[in-house]
Amino acid sequence: MKAALVLTVLACGLSKGQTADDCKPSSLNIPGAPYPCVYPDHRVAFRVAAPDAQKVQVRLGGVHEMTRGPEGLWTVTIPPQVVGFHYYSIVVDGAVIADPATRTFFGSGWDNSGIEIPAPDADFYAAKDVPHGQVSQRWYYSKVTGQWRRCYVYTPPDYETNSRIRYPVLYLLHGWGENEQGWSTQGHMDFILDNLIAAKKAHPMIVVMDNLNAVKPGEDPSLYTARSIIARRSMADIPPPPGAARGGGRPMFPAHWGETFTEMMFTDLIPMVERTYRVLPGRENRAMAGLSMGGAQTFKTALNHLDQFAYLGGFSGSCGGRDATFDPKTSCDGAFADPAAFNKKVKLVFLGIGTAEGPGTKNFSDALTSAGIHNVYFESPGTAHEWLTWRRCLNDFAPRLFQQ
Amino acid sequence: MKAALVLTVLACGLSKGQTADDCKPSSLNIPGAPYPCVYPDHRVAFRVAAPDAQKVQVRLGGVHEMTRGPEGLWTVTIPPQVVGFHYYSIVVDGAVIADPATRTFFGSGWDNSGIEIPAPDADFYAAKDVPHGQVSQRWYYSKVTGQWRRCYVYTPPDYETNSRIRYPVLYLLHGWGENEQGWSTQGHMDFILDNLIAAKKAHPMIVVMDNLNAVKPGEDPSLYTARSIIARRSMADIPPPPGAARGGGRPMFPAHWGETFTEMMFTDLIPMVERTYRVLPGRENRAMAGLSMGGAQTFKTALNHLDQFAYLGGFSGSCGGRDATFDPKTSCDGAFADPAAFNKKVKLVFLGIGTAEGPGTKNFSDALTSAGIHNVYFESPGTAHEWLTWRRCLNDFAPRLFQQ
Repeated sequence: MKAALVLTVLACGLSKGQTADDCKPSSLNIPGAPYPCVYPDHRVAFRVAAPDAQKVQVRLGGVHEMTRGPEGLWTVTIPPQVVGFHYYSIVVDGAVIADPATRTFFGSGWDNSGIEIPAPDADFYAAKDVPHGQVSQRWYYSKVTGQWRRCYVYTPPDYETNSRIRYPVLYLLHGWGENEQGWSTQGHMDFILDNLIAAKKAHPMIVVMDNLNAVKPGEDPSLYTARSIIARRSMADIPPPPGAARGGGRPMFPAHWGETFTEMMFTDLIPMVERTYRVLPGRENRAMAGLSMGGAQTFKTALNHLDQFAYLGGFSGSCGGRDATFDPKTSCDGAFADPAAFNKKVKLVFLGIGTAEGPGTKNFSDALTSAGIHNVYFESPGTAHEWLTWRRCLNDFAPRLFQQ
Repeated sequence: MKAALVLTVLACGLSKGQTADDCKPSSLNIPGAPYPCVYPDHRVAFRVAAPDAQKVQVRLGGVHEMTRGPEGLWTVTIPPQVVGFHYYSIVVDGAVIADPATRTFFGSGWDNSGIEIPAPDADFYAAKDVPHGQVSQRWYYSKVTGQWRRCYVYTPPDYETNSRIRYPVLYLLHGWGENEQGWSTQGHMDFILDNLIAAKKAHPMIVVMDNLNAVKPGEDPSLYTARSIIARRSMADIPPPPGAARGGGRPMFPAHWGETFTEMMFTDLIPMVERTYRVLPGRENRAMAGLSMGGAQTFKTALNHLDQFAYLGGFSGSCGGRDATFDPKTSCDGAFADPAAFNKKVKLVFLGIGTAEGPGTKNFSDALTSAGIHNVYFESPGTAHEWLTWRRCLNDFAPRLFQQ
């Protein structure tokens, strides 16, 4: 009986020496769901119930055709995947959907499915037996946008019980198509900080995670909202973006991009944070970082307000384009025109990237160095424009903050 | 041009006097998504992109067939819906999925789509210009289950700034197939408490929202996990539940049901809360309530530990079955056998229900009253076993707590 089972399973395409028992459910599955599962060699098996469908596919990196089996269950095992978190979707007869077997994660403007491939260094973002901080959901009214906004705020361990201590603050931004929840769900920023603080590698800090989407009444929000392939297919009436779109539906940044966020940040967000939490005052207790579009926003905001921030981080995003020609006198709003003054004022410029993302960030770092601007360059080995890159960036970046 | 557009839209089935402009996107849609939308008379229009599908349906209450239109967009307008929050799903050629156009909400064991039909009394759970508390995500290790657990904790406005004040605590539970996020997302408990506290109708309190799913190593978690129609279809290997299933895949409760949760609560949860937050001690500063299965857990836990709780609430769930014969000497573990002693000890027994849910809760309340047990009976007019019932229950329940 058991031998027959093994043979049947082998016939479905298992590699030598691996059995179905080796396929472990992804940690992001809904409770009790056995699929998707991940093999030790990082192949992934998917299963979807679609009894009357003609064609079912998995979109993860490329497009993978599923095969119809008994009871309308479609299956496929795909080649080994890179470690870390990946968004993915299912296509059922042309409908692009989230896999009902996983929790959903807000990315590309919608609640997509996600899978986690165990990384060899996963320990740094794991829940461990150390003191834990907490992530809080905080609503506040923005005078600039005329709307209620939500941010998430990490307070370090002992924040509640040590009521006399004040903390420095890191403002940390998500990327395009994501939102203020990204860093505490996909990013595990709470466990990363908990572990760093417990190991005395990072100074205890408050981390504020807001939403990049900040528009005044009458401004067009579409730069920030759902315009991925899925969104455009299911929402035909969404207008084209301001400025031309480039590959993958990601937007070009128009000239005034990010200015409303900056205004909102200084008018509404920072005052609310400093009124509500036990915060240390002044620029030397304030850092800003972000990933991808959030990195671009960070450099846009902070380089134009260096009286407010002493530490900057760009994870797969900054003011240095992927292939831009860097001119220290004019690039990045001319912020680097006086290297000596800049170095004296700014305690950290951090540039992080995944090695699968191309040389743009390295080139930018080298150009800054050539221009005499101190900066730290960090590479996440083997990862692309995805969350493991940014978890690793944060893990390297946070210990460099507020060490006075 | 405009006239032609209106005529085209009218041909798709609008009622007299209503145009497509009257259909307002649901507040739960992903940013920028025009569908699903809600008409003033509470009909709902859906649209899904499924270019190659043969059959597409909406499941909301009943099953509604969609019609294929240009560009593979399927649409349907369904009859007026009851006000409040409803889970719903889409079926594409037999695949039961979440609508990609809405945010997802964890219910029936998976991340389902949701729609909000504006209620006439929506003001009580709206974000208003009042001081706001915050909802925090708190991780803690459970010795009883041997696992890390996550709870959500509401702290009232000024909790951070008034560091000398201590607060009473309400332990508030979700229902079957939901999780610790339900009350702060589907339930809007934060806005309900903010508004009550601002109006001085409720005493400021901490609210702790944990997950009902608490099992020791070796215990079967399937009572709590995904076994809805969607889950069973896509996860054929999930074992049948302990005890017989009844309609809709909801479980019967086996004899020892809820005991591990109770043990975990006293061993891990309450000590963590009282160590971490500024909490007032003692049973008169401790309330417990829950909805549906969480109401059953509340009565199971609290009636057996009246030395720990002075206030109890059951919202569409308690120890009184929907049609049980009530015997004050033996029902509910005999907790009501001595009415005078019970009334002296317990400050509140609250029983809430939606009027569309049947007479079971009213009958239970009447039976308690006949047996001499003081209790408060609350009805949500017109609503079923859904979140608007429970929002209204909380809004009526919370002002009755901790008013000493």
